[in-house]
Formats: sequence, C-alpha cells, structure tokens
Amino acid sequence: MRLATPQTLVSIANLLGVPYVGPAEHLIWGINEIHRVVPGDLTFVDVQKYFKKALNSAATTILINQTIPPPKGKALLISPEPFTHFNFLLNYFNPPSAPHIFHEHKSNVTENDVHFGANVIIGKNVTIGKNTSIGHNVCIGANVKIGENVVIFPNVTIYENTIIGNHVRIQANAVIGSEAFYYKKRPEGRERMLSCGRTILEDYVEIGANTTIDRGVTADTIIGAHTKIDNLVQIGHDTVIGKRCIIAAQVGIAGASNIEDDVILWGQVGVPSDVTIGQNATILAQSGVMSSLEGNKVYFGSPAKEAKRKYRELVVLSKITDLFHKFKNL
Amino acid sequence: MRLATPQTLVSIANLLGVPYVGPAEHLIWGINEIHRVVPGDLTFVDVQKYFKKALNSAATTILINQTIPPPKGKALLISPEPFTHFNFLLNYFNPPSAPHIFHEHKSNVTENDVHFGANVIIGKNVTIGKNTSIGHNVCIGANVKIGENVVIFPNVTIYENTIIGNHVRIQANAVIGSEAFYYKKRPEGRERMLSCGRTILEDYVEIGANTTIDRGVTADTIIGAHTKIDNLVQIGHDTVIGKRCIIAAQVGIAGASNIEDDVILWGQVGVPSDVTIGQNATILAQSGVMSSLEGNKVYFGSPAKEAKRKYRELVVLSKITDLFHKFKNL
Amino acid sequence: MRLATPQTLVSIANLLGVPYVGPAEHLIWGINEIHRVVPGDLTFVDVQKYFKKALNSAATTILINQTIPPPKGKALLISPEPFTHFNFLLNYFNPPSAPHIFHEHKSNVTENDVHFGANVIIGKNVTIGKNTSIGHNVCIGANVKIGENVVIFPNVTIYENTIIGNHVRIQANAVIGSEAFYYKKRPEGRERMLSCGRTILEDYVEIGANTTIDRGVTADTIIGAHTKIDNLVQIGHDTVIGKRCIIAAQVGIAGASNIEDDVILWGQVGVPSDVTIGQNATILAQSGVMSSLEGNKVYFGSPAKEAKRKYRELVVLSKITDLFHKFKNL
Repeated sequence: MRLATPQTLVSIANLLGVPYVGPAEHLIWGINEIHRVVPGDLTFVDVQKYFKKALNSAATTILINQTIPPPKGKALLISPEPFTHFNFLLNYFNPPSAPHIFHEHKSNVTENDVHFGANVIIGKNVTIGKNTSIGHNVCIGANVKIGENVVIFPNVTIYENTIIGNHVRIQANAVIGSEAFYYKKRPEGRERMLSCGRTILEDYVEIGANTTIDRGVTADTIIGAHTKIDNLVQIGHDTVIGKRCIIAAQVGIAGASNIEDDVILWGQVGVPSDVTIGQNATILAQSGVMSSLEGNKVYFGSPAKEAKRKYRELVVLSKITDLFHKFKNL
Repeated sequence: MRLATPQTLVSIANLLGVPYVGPAEHLIWGINEIHRVVPGDLTFVDVQKYFKKALNSAATTILINQTIPPPKGKALLISPEPFTHFNFLLNYFNPPSAPHIFHEHKSNVTENDVHFGANVIIGKNVTIGKNTSIGHNVCIGANVKIGENVVIFPNVTIYENTIIGNHVRIQANAVIGSEAFYYKKRPEGRERMLSCGRTILEDYVEIGANTTIDRGVTADTIIGAHTKIDNLVQIGHDTVIGKRCIIAAQVGIAGASNIEDDVILWGQVGVPSDVTIGQNATILAQSGVMSSLEGNKVYFGSPAKEAKRKYRELVVLSKITDLFHKFKNL
Repeated sequence: MRLATPQTLVSIANLLGVPYVGPAEHLIWGINEIHRVVPGDLTFVDVQKYFKKALNSAATTILINQTIPPPKGKALLISPEPFTHFNFLLNYFNPPSAPHIFHEHKSNVTENDVHFGANVIIGKNVTIGKNTSIGHNVCIGANVKIGENVVIFPNVTIYENTIIGNHVRIQANAVIGSEAFYYKKRPEGRERMLSCGRTILEDYVEIGANTTIDRGVTADTIIGAHTKIDNLVQIGHDTVIGKRCIIAAQVGIAGASNIEDDVILWGQVGVPSDVTIGQNATILAQSGVMSSLEGNKVYFGSPAKEAKRKYRELVVLSKITDLFHKFKNL
C-alpha cells in the first residue's frame, strides 16, 4: 500500500505513541506485509525467528517488539504490539468501508454505453467502461474500476477498490475482493489483519461461478491477463498469478503465493502460502504442493513431485503389494 | 429439538396411528436424531444393526419398526416406517417456512442503530443488535437472531432460526443454515429428512465467502466462539465445532461430527460424519480423516495418520522405488 | 444442439466462406462437440491426432483444417480455423443473451399458483409450474422451464435455457447453467467455446448451496431423476449424471463425463472429463478418478483403485516402513 503522502518516522512514532530508532526525518512511503515489501515500505515483525528476515527485507522501516540495531539506512519503531499497531496504521491511512454503504442503485438502464440489469448496487467513485454488462443483483463496492466489454453475471459481489480490466468475464455468484484470512493468535482468540490491498483482474481474465478471490492485506492480489479460472476456486490474499494460466475447478491457492505465467493447475489442486510455481509448470488434479516448484515440469501427488517419479513410486508400491501377497501364500 | 410442551407417549401414538410399548403417560420432551439425543428425547431407528445403539442411547422413547423389549424406563412406538413418521413429527411440531415468505424489505436505512444496505429481505421475528451492518441483497429467514457489532457482506443467505452472536463477520455470498444432506433410500428414490435444527454462530466467529453451513436436522450446528472459517468451506448438519478453531479454505466437514476447541484444519481437509477430532489437533492440508483422532497431535495423509509417521512412510516408499530402479539396472 | 431447420452443406459453406467436400445438398441437422455427437450432426476437429476419431464419430459433417477423403456418406467443411468457425455457427444459430437482459421483476406475489419472494428477476419465455416457490433475489434467464412443486432458495442464479423438472429443490446461492470452462489455446491467450447447450435437472433432483452446474457447450448437462447433490459441488459442461445418484459435498466432475445410475461419490471426489463411471459404483471420499471405472464396485485413492486393493497397498507400505525402521535399528 502506497501512502498518498510520505510520512516521517517521527510522525508515525508520535501517531502510535512509541519510541523509534533512526533519523526523525526518515521517510515512509508505503505500508506492506513482509511478503510484498518494496524499498520505502514499513513492515512489522513480532516473532524473534523472523526478525532477521524482516530486517533484511526490502522494507526500510520495521515495526518491531524488541530494540536491536537496524541495518544501515533502515529505521525501527519499537512497539509492544507490532501487529495491532500495523493494523492501526492500515486503518488510519486506508479505512475500509462498511458493507451497507452504497451510492447508486441502477435497474434496467443503459447509461454511457454501460448496460445494467435489475437491482445493481454501486458504491462511490465507481467507473465502468463502455459496452460492459452488469448482471442483476450485482454489488460493486467503492472505488471499483471496471473496463470495457466486461460481462458480469448475476449475484456477483465485488468488494471495494477492485480493478477489473477489459474483456473480463465473471460468472454468477463469484466473489471478488473478499477479506484476507489472516489472524494473529491472542490468548482470548484471534485478531484479524485488516485488508487494505486490492484485487486486480487484468484484461481477458475469466472467473468461474462461485469462485472467491481475496484481496491483498497491504499489496494486491493479481490475476494476470488471459488467465482463466473455473468454478469454486479459492485464491488467497496477495497472491500473484501470471498471464495465460489455467486454474481448473476447486483449486485452492493460499495467500502470498506466486504462480508464474502459463501455469496449469488441474482440478482440486492445493497450493500453500508463500511458494512460487515456475513458468509453464503443470500440476495434475488433486495434487498438493508443499514448496516452490520449478517451471516447465509436470507434477503429481500430495505432496506433489514430478509426475513421472510419483507414478513410478505408485507402480513400485503396487508391485511390492503383489510380492507381499505371494509371500504370504507360500 | 425441544418440544414447547412435553407430549405423552399415548398422544404421539395416536397422532401417528401406531401402537406403543410403555406407560401411556410416559413423557417425550424433545425429538432428536440419534447422534444428538439427550434424556427425554424421542429418536428413531429402522435398521436392525442399529437397534441396540438406539435403545441404549440417551433417548427415552424409540420409534422403531420391530417390537422388542425396551430397556427399563424407556418406551417404544412401533411403526412400519420410523423415518417417515419421525419426519412427520418434526414437521408437525416445527414446520419449516417456504423460501418466498418474508416480512420486511429494508433499503438504505439505519433503524435502532442497525445499518441496512440496499434491498435487505427480513423474515418474521428477526432481531438485530445495535451497530450491526447488513450488506446489500442479504436475505434473513424467520426467527433469526443477530447480535451487536456484526458485519454481513452482500448476497449472504441466512436461513430461518439461525442464531448469530456478537462481533460475527460473514463474507459475501456465504450461506448459513441450508438444509441437511440426509436421505433415506427408497426403491423409487430417496426421502429427505427435514431440517428442523438451527445453526448457531457464537461470538467473534468469522465466515468466509461462499462458505456453506447446514443447519441441524433436529439439534444445532454450532460454531464455537472465536472460530475463524475461510472461503468455500462446507460444514454439515449437526456438526459441533469448538472455540478458537481455524478452518482453512475448501475444508469439508460432514454431518454430526465434533471438532473440539483449538483444532486447526488446513486447506482442503475432509472430515467424515460422526467422528471427533480432539482438542488442539492440527490436520495438515488435503488430509482425509477416516475416524476419530486424539488431540494435541499433528496429522497428515488420506487416510490421515500422525504426520511424522505418514512422512516416514512416504520416505520409505521413495527409497524402495530407488532400490527397485537400481535392481532393474543391474 | 438441434437446428430449428436442417441446413444444406453448401449453405453452411457459403455462410462460413469455406470450401466443402460432399454433396451440396447433404443435410446438417445439428451442431455438436465431439463427445456428444449424434448422426446428422456437424462437429469440428483441428488437431491431427483426433482426425480419425472425428471422422469415425457419429457426426456426418466434419469441420476440419485439412482436406482428406471423408468416410462414405459423410461430408467435410474445410476451414483454416475450425474452432472459430464452429463458434461462429453456434452463435449464428443460437445466440446467447447478455446477463443484464430481463423481462419481468416480481416481488412478493402469487400468480398462477406460483409463489414469488422479493425481487425475483425473470427472463423472456420463462414458464413455472404450480405450487412452486421462487426465493428472494433469484435470477432466472430466458427460456427457462421450471416444473411444479419446485423450491428454489434465495440468491440462486439460473442461466438461460435451463430445464427444471417437478419436485426439484435448489439450496441458496447455487448456480445452474453457468458457462463451460472450455478454451482453444492461441498464441496471445485463449478463445472461449460458446456455451449453447442447456442444463436439465430431472424430477426430484436436489441441489446443494453454492453448487455450480455448467451448461453444455452444444449438448446438455443432465442430472437424472432423484439424484441428490450436496453443497459446493462442481459439475462440468455436457456431463450426464444418471438417476438416484448421491454426490456429496465438494465433489468435482469435469466436462463431458458419464455417471451412470445409482453411483455414489463421497465428499471431495474428483472425476476428470470424458470418463464413464459404471452403474452402482461407489467412490470413497477424496478419491481421484483417472479413467473409466466399472460399476458395482467400491473405489478409493488418488488415483482411484478398487478400495480393497488400495487399502492393501497402504497396509503393505505401513509394514515395510516398520521393517525399514527395525533394520535401521539393528
């Protein structure tokens, strides 16, 4: 998340009421969760084993629960509760809107070459390109941008700040931009990370019925151009999917993962968070990815391995089962 | 299901037109399916191999298709079709309402400190606590109770009799309280069990987009306080989930299961009906539970075993595959 | 897809501007994708390895990208882009309608013994039988036929041309008749196959919440009478499911598959495209079908095998793991 205006270290420290380490005028240009930081960003860390990762990441300001010497050119904000303070900053600079707020209610009209079905609900600052059709009962949150020649079928929900390119097609009852499943454990329950990122569907993306795509917590969930996603697929927050991918029905991809261009995931595949699947990889149906996978290969199994190897293992298991059986019958 | 007024054995026998075994004035205080019976309940059984289980359950009145001596203090109703007669009783004492019935239609108003989006449909006897936001196109069935500080996103459907606590958050297009997938096989097809139970979401529960939670057939489907459920999850009828659980995307839990407190189910895990997963158990992604599992352990695989053991098996399979290959190449 | 009027070979050749092989007056009665062709149909093929399959299929006219001698009694249309031309013909003879088009908006009325909830959107030429209840916010596309005694819960989307029998029950937020996930790869992306087929739900079918059923591309997706489908299930285009089947939650069935009568698929099973599962087969939870399976057997595993065999393999793997461990400890 870029800030509209860069903030000084001292101003953020005063806002949170916490001490800081570094030059008072050190600038913070954005706020991002560790997986998606870029130089100029503030990030947070509250678990000792991730201190090094956070300090050595691209982030230049770290909200942390221990005073340690920062790397050169970086600054610290010392907080007893980095997660809560990080959430406070997200909310302060980018407050989410409530689900009952809307701006316009359109029904059965064509305006500016946009075709509205019955009972379309539209938030503030929404723009829609020409020759786009918005189906009945579609709800569009604030600040959503929708391109030209888009088709959205009935009962779709599009959360605030979503960006939809041209020639995108979204089947009925899909949900674009729902909140991230991201919590901090507390003794009494769990604290939710706010979702201040966006969801971006590039040109020619197609989304299946009842598919759900969570928006980023601080960065963007991105579906690359020409990628086609089938029904009942789950895409987690901050995940970036490349161009021309095929994601078959009931695939689940957790948060903050990277699916490079031309990847094919067949039905019911599972991908965990924070892994990369290389360009042009194919993952066969029901496979469960456990760690990053190189491109240009075919994978199978749960955990997923190269398909040839996995099949060989299954053949060997079958042969050994026959041997056991023969042995038992001697 | 508790009855509003307890009924005598003879009055139920007359209602069904069937004979009974036991004192005419023996009282029936509730009606429940075998997995959720408590003392005072009537239950049914129509398969000989389950006679013993039903007779020895907490139920004190059994609707059964054979005359056998009841345990001391229990009574029988003898019916040629216990399933059909049980359904008849459910419908008689708790008739479900049709999906076209509603009471109020709210749009873009705040009343009693409840914020309504556009086109909110509300059934009879619905109560909603203050500072709650109801998103656009949300449909709320009869007798639903919703607490304070709840957020419900657009296009959510909440079936009748659902109880929602305080600080609950429900993402778009989720379905709370749909009917149980529970049938009796008949020569010509299948007879549906009526769903007369409720769904209860306790305080601080969060529900993901397009997730579905079936209501109980006679008892309640319960999601314990502080439990967080991700997108596209299925929770079956009469299942009871404890407090502070994490249920990741695309998990499926069948009916009448028990998930104790602090359980974590990662993505795409499957849990069958009528099992218990012990407190603080963790089940890794894509695992398939086959029977009850002890708490405080980590499980993996389909069928699920302790994860360490399952991983060891997978390592052994890999080693043996290498041995086979070497042997072949000698 | 049957044509309203049969077309001559020469008329179609002229429409597409392509040469043909065969008698000018050769008749084309319908247009179908290869998996669902019947005599009289035109189909297409553009990959050499499938030429034989297409030419020897039931189709009597083949749209093809190479001039080869057709089998006796069959005709060819020679096109540089059979996929695109096939799509052109589908659109020409059966143009799909846009999602913003509707005919009527009903709210809280009973007409001709049909009960409408709030805000029901209805397309052109829709017929609905008596004693049917249509829930709030349900969207019904053009030319849909719905039988008697049907119950449709809120927020369901039914795409155009769907046929729904009597006594059908559809839970909330389900999607019936969404477009097929079927593309032709192109250098710059993918070309979508139009979906001109229908979805047919026969009598007594029940559909779970948030379940999605794609319509056929040229033929029909059919759910046989008395089949019960649970929540979050995916059924692909042109798949035909028999009578009295049980499809548990989160099952995924790809396109153009055949599930015969009385099949049981337990939770999270995956079925690929173009396979047949024989009558009365049972497939246990989380199994992944890889090829056609005989009826009257029980299957398990991913890939699915006969369950007894699969369990034996798993037992052998466990025993070998113990042996390895003992050996290591000698």
